[in-house]
Amino acid sequence: TMRHLSLADDPVRHPAMKVNSQRPFNKLHHTQPYLLHPEPSALGAPGGQSLSLSLDDLHNFPKYEITVTLQCAGNRRSEMTQVKEVKGLEWRTGAISTARWAGARLCDVLAQAGHQLCETEAHVCFEGLDADPTGTAYGASIPLARAMDPEAEVLLAYEMNGQPLPRDHGFPVRVVVPGVVGARHVKWLGRVSVQPEESYSHWQRRDYKGFSPSVDWDTVDFDSAPSIQELPVQSAITEPRDGETVESGEVTIKGYAWSGGGRAVIRVDVSLDGGLTWQVAKLDGEEQRPRKAWAWRLWQLKAPVPAGQKELNIVCKAVDDGYNVQPDTVAPIWNLRGVLSNAWHRVHVYVSP
Amino acid sequence: TMRHLSLADDPVRHPAMKVNSQRPFNKLHHTQPYLLHPEPSALGAPGGQSLSLSLDDLHNFPKYEITVTLQCAGNRRSEMTQVKEVKGLEWRTGAISTARWAGARLCDVLAQAGHQLCETEAHVCFEGLDADPTGTAYGASIPLARAMDPEAEVLLAYEMNGQPLPRDHGFPVRVVVPGVVGARHVKWLGRVSVQPEESYSHWQRRDYKGFSPSVDWDTVDFDSAPSIQELPVQSAITEPRDGETVESGEVTIKGYAWSGGGRAVIRVDVSLDGGLTWQVAKLDGEEQRPRKAWAWRLWQLKAPVPAGQKELNIVCKAVDDGYNVQPDTVAPIWNLRGVLSNAWHRVHVYVSP
Ligand SMILES: [Mo]
Ligand SMILES: [Mo]
Repeated sequence: TMRHLSLADDPVRHPAMKVNSQRPFNKLHHTQPYLLHPEPSALGAPGGQSLSLSLDDLHNFPKYEITVTLQCAGNRRSEMTQVKEVKGLEWRTGAISTARWAGARLCDVLAQAGHQLCETEAHVCFEGLDADPTGTAYGASIPLARAMDPEAEVLLAYEMNGQPLPRDHGFPVRVVVPGVVGARHVKWLGRVSVQPEESYSHWQRRDYKGFSPSVDWDTVDFDSAPSIQELPVQSAITEPRDGETVESGEVTIKGYAWSGGGRAVIRVDVSLDGGLTWQVAKLDGEEQRPRKAWAWRLWQLKAPVPAGQKELNIVCKAVDDGYNVQPDTVAPIWNLRGVLSNAWHRVHVYVSP
Repeated sequence: TMRHLSLADDPVRHPAMKVNSQRPFNKLHHTQPYLLHPEPSALGAPGGQSLSLSLDDLHNFPKYEITVTLQCAGNRRSEMTQVKEVKGLEWRTGAISTARWAGARLCDVLAQAGHQLCETEAHVCFEGLDADPTGTAYGASIPLARAMDPEAEVLLAYEMNGQPLPRDHGFPVRVVVPGVVGARHVKWLGRVSVQPEESYSHWQRRDYKGFSPSVDWDTVDFDSAPSIQELPVQSAITEPRDGETVESGEVTIKGYAWSGGGRAVIRVDVSLDGGLTWQVAKLDGEEQRPRKAWAWRLWQLKAPVPAGQKELNIVCKAVDDGYNVQPDTVAPIWNLRGVLSNAWHRVHVYVSP
């Protein structure tokens, strides 16, 4: 059975999150400002036959509704900046959000356009109706195999949390690619096409890729790394906050945990002593559907504060159902764009005397 | 295109590997001794109709041949033992092997028995013809969704490296589950059945699961963790060996890297200074098929030895195409069975003056 986030869990109202960002928590941004053209969605799909679909046409496909967490590749980038300068917005732990999305399945739309899965690798390219200051539309792509897999539940979404998409979230239609980096969830969708190669957009080819910490802007070869699609396991502490003073006696620690590719979070370990000893946190909400764990799990731990302790170094790390874990430290995964920042999350607090 | 390991890469003859184990490198063991009954394979499949298949019957299904790396859950267990005692064989880096396997696809056999994928979760249970000293046959299971997915390429294998299965490798038939922990690749296969629950065998339910380092044999609740299926990203240095003396001037470092779930290895970082600075190793062989990277990649790095250096702390870490990484250290992933040991691999060597 699927996990539905209750309203009480709604990240927009999550008090610990709000402080992280001046912008609404439940909004993901690309790094370029957008010019918004809220026209009806027109989908062309060369490769099969070409289709032009209005928003009404899209409503005529079977409607699917799923809860999906979107994470920006740059979530927790600020921790990488502390190691060495990177290019990108200074996200702390707030570049992640969860909502219920409803729309037509991309596989149904592609099937109507005559597409089917083929042995040779192909890609579904998305183009936004928005454009950056140079007039270039936002673009991204995902492999055709994911797009055509009904189990992958890729949506052309026209509803968010039961309402038509807000303008900031991609009205009239955005792509939702569960388990995949936010950058592929193209907003203000204008065009879909099946191509033999990945999207040639800047954001697919020259951004949103991971590199070794030894690679800098003088030596980087963007063609040498695959575009980020599925994201690795992630978790963060949202309460208490770094630098805060907590009561002695007992401390309550809360946070979120999520993994890409539909992999479920199976455990969150929490340490009060910087990672020397660990306790297992309680995962809130219901168990998730196998292979379709698209939404985060919120978690908490109530733990006694060891007597006489003046400070706590709180750490969390999550494990997903492929038994993938988070790395201990940031420096060895540092990269020039500050993406994929998923080391243990650390919060230092004082204990009130 | 698929990566075929050339004979020169054959792990049986890999000199760096041989030293790790008294047993042939290319052999995976379960933790119990086996009594071997090499009878013809008889497959019963309750749930659909029941089928009895001889080895000849199995040869009548379309034949598939794929290169697959099998890794024991306990590979590199000895590094966990150095943190704290665990139960299990003292594997170093040698409990992993790669071979070409040929046989019928499990999905074709299940389809002939009338099975199809259903919405409710189900499991395919395997029983070996071998038995432990108490008379209990070895058993394991995988989710039906994996078994029925043609893209997952689960085989009932009757050939290894172009020859009928050797007795030690499961003659007449073994299961090969690409991307999944060795323990599910049941040898000397006697029976296959589709069940609403996972196999009730000891090895499925009371072993081959991961736990927090805080869990010991007094507190462990085996029902609280999922059985290991896909394994996390792994790599190890096979040359030079720990404690060895290398020439000054230039050092050649070699090793393997692999990830579960068909995820390809996209990069291996190597450090000569314990993880402070990194260089990118060269991946040998061809690129792998997307989502079907079942075989390891061997890698190497030729690096200058910094002048005046008397010792080197060589470290490797791999990244897979979900941008999953290996954790820095062993202690935080320590678990009572010593499984899933995939921290950075470290080798300390001396430089000849
Ligand atoms: Mo993003
Ligand atoms: Mo094993």
